[in-house]
Amino acid sequence: MSEKKTLLGRPVETEGVPNLYEGSPVVKWKAPEPGIDNLGLHSWDTFAIPGVGEFDVEFDGYVRVVRSPATDEEWAGAEVYTNLIEMHMTGASEELGTITVTLNPEYLSAGQIRTPFDPYAGEGPAAKACRMAVGCMFDIPKLGTRLFNREPVILTIDDVRSIPPAGAPGKGQIYRMLPLYDVRTPWDEPTAYLTSLKFNMGGYLPAERFQ
Amino acid sequence: MSEKKTLLGRPVETEGVPNLYEGSPVVKWKAPEPGIDNLGLHSWDTFAIPGVGEFDVEFDGYVRVVRSPATDEEWAGAEVYTNLIEMHMTGASEELGTITVTLNPEYLSAGQIRTPFDPYAGEGPAAKACRMAVGCMFDIPKLGTRLFNREPVILTIDDVRSIPPAGAPGKGQIYRMLPLYDVRTPWDEPTAYLTSLKFNMGGYLPAERFQ
Repeated sequence: MSEKKTLLGRPVETEGVPNLYEGSPVVKWKAPEPGIDNLGLHSWDTFAIPGVGEFDVEFDGYVRVVRSPATDEEWAGAEVYTNLIEMHMTGASEELGTITVTLNPEYLSAGQIRTPFDPYAGEGPAAKACRMAVGCMFDIPKLGTRLFNREPVILTIDDVRSIPPAGAPGKGQIYRMLPLYDVRTPWDEPTAYLTSLKFNMGGYLPAERFQ
Repeated sequence: MSEKKTLLGRPVETEGVPNLYEGSPVVKWKAPEPGIDNLGLHSWDTFAIPGVGEFDVEFDGYVRVVRSPATDEEWAGAEVYTNLIEMHMTGASEELGTITVTLNPEYLSAGQIRTPFDPYAGEGPAAKACRMAVGCMFDIPKLGTRLFNREPVILTIDDVRSIPPAGAPGKGQIYRMLPLYDVRTPWDEPTAYLTSLKFNMGGYLPAERFQ
């Protein structure tokens, strides 16, 4: 079902699923047909390097997310499973130089959108919760290093009113510090830690961006 | 370095490391020699089963944790790496029957103890933060199911003043819901979710418990 070494969630079929680009509708309170969402992403990450310091880096780029069929036609009962099939984010800081974040090819980065167990109890439809467990590679040429995480970064979006949750703010659920290892010395102590991550899910990008 | 399929942290050498049982000292503000800590553990978990309900279950049992040499003789700079080499917890609820929690043998459950990047800034030594990423198996014979997690359960203890942090309270850092999959149908939707986990690290147990 998946050739990845480590599955961080449930695999989603990509074959025959259409790519969705700029101009695709984002409809509130409606479970959509399967699709590959090509979306913008913006994030604000903080890295701590022991003995060196903490560094805030702002990233911009895109993700490609494949969505499963919804488990129910009605919004209320619908669950949707997702796999992150591509990510490309770049950021820069004076001290660390340019950083490029991509997916770790050994991990299946995966998630889901479903109604939480403590949903909004007022009138009208209940918003859903979105979560994605992600394995990344952080290329930092200025430091001559390429880092990866073993604990997944858990990206969450609350108050999800449409699928995809285009335009919604989200958070990386990092408790204090998430260790990052150097690919050249994977058995050594972590080289750095991710200590904070906030993001903003963008909208559909033009197809030209991916050609 | 490790025969496990998925490493959730850094592997720690177990060969030649002594087992520590009841009577072993727990010394404050001191980085100890390597050891295998045989400790009691008590936890309070909440499981949500879609369409069925939420269930609180109290567990009791033990863990065996191997600790690396500290990276520094002085408490302030010392980091210690840990691997969970065994876990055995049992709990019961009227609806779910007896549940037994053990380690998932495909995962290296691993963690570390280090000074956080936002340490206590007052007088006296700074407490450390302990984290462990864990892959579990949940046996639930009454439901005829055996569940496992793909996202690790991140167990954390704050305000760590001794290694091991015997007697300290801790928390599973679960954001809303952590999916649990059935080993028989690992590609299907999650069978259940872990929605909350609190625990209390116990002290050293008698050697007889492990014979």
